[in-house]
Amino acid sequence: MAKKSFPLSRVYGLLEPGPVVLITTGYRGRTDIMAQSWHTMLEFEPPLVGCVISNRNYSFGLLKAGRECVINIPTAKLAKQVVACGNTTGARVDKFVAFGLTSAPARHVCAPLIAECYANLECRVVDTRGVAKYGFFVLEVVQAWVDSAVKNPQTLHHLGKGQFMVAGRRIRLPSRMK
Amino acid sequence: MAKKSFPLSRVYGLLEPGPVVLITTGYRGRTDIMAQSWHTMLEFEPPLVGCVISNRNYSFGLLKAGRECVINIPTAKLAKQVVACGNTTGARVDKFVAFGLTSAPARHVCAPLIAECYANLECRVVDTRGVAKYGFFVLEVVQAWVDSAVKNPQTLHHLGKGQFMVAGRRIRLPSRMK
Repeated sequence: MAKKSFPLSRVYGLLEPGPVVLITTGYRGRTDIMAQSWHTMLEFEPPLVGCVISNRNYSFGLLKAGRECVINIPTAKLAKQVVACGNTTGARVDKFVAFGLTSAPARHVCAPLIAECYANLECRVVDTRGVAKYGFFVLEVVQAWVDSAVKNPQTLHHLGKGQFMVAGRRIRLPSRMK
Repeated sequence: MAKKSFPLSRVYGLLEPGPVVLITTGYRGRTDIMAQSWHTMLEFEPPLVGCVISNRNYSFGLLKAGRECVINIPTAKLAKQVVACGNTTGARVDKFVAFGLTSAPARHVCAPLIAECYANLECRVVDTRGVAKYGFFVLEVVQAWVDSAVKNPQTLHHLGKGQFMVAGRRIRLPSRMK
């Protein structure tokens, strides 16, 4: 994989703009991929991410049991696969095989990376107190990988009912915000 | 205001793409505006939104005391004001006056709407259990307003250190996802 380790202190810049992500889980030989937009940064460093994964999703059981996952960030090139992942359940389909995605081993967690995604964040579950009520898992990013050849990633942003907005032009303003 | 009441069942489509928002608070004659990207949907209907507001922000005290706020969604036209709000503190500056933003009364909450934002979500705090550890407030959207003249809102998406991505082209794919 042509990806480089990415500083954990800069992970927030990958997730703050709100991209659709593909969350991979793996536990005892079973894996799943889930399309997801309900996530937020909770802390800069170590990076903490809050993710909603409903108990209606096959991934829920794998994440609860394995307590590890990978947040994979796709670009618009993968739009069809993202929708396909969202329209199927891992209970019946091996999504890697069905949608031609390449599983790659993570360094620190059991869940697989999706090689085609430009960034991959290896995560461990650190707080499950919001799970019963909201399906809200707090994840700590323990390793980040980014394909440094991708300069302005054309991330996908879900608008509902099959509509997506693709990342557009970039602007820079004088800011003291992190 | 030329805004129409917007169905609560469709609010997720406004926040899922991850726009920068301006959160307004108001309590006992004091108001604040805070630029914010750390938010996620938690439930479709009634819409629940999780928002991180650190106790380092002036808004924190107003939200904790008043338990109401408005999530205002700006477009790229307001980029300078967004950055200005992020670079200042409401403890010393009345941001409405300083940055030429228009305060408008909300229907159900004490916090003011920002008239210049294309969408405004009136919210009540419904769960503070994540506040001590993460500054994570769970908000219920009780009223939504959208300027129906704005067709493809050029929302801002924060990349860190003054860089923003502006909403780009839209694509539609056959999806069964909500």
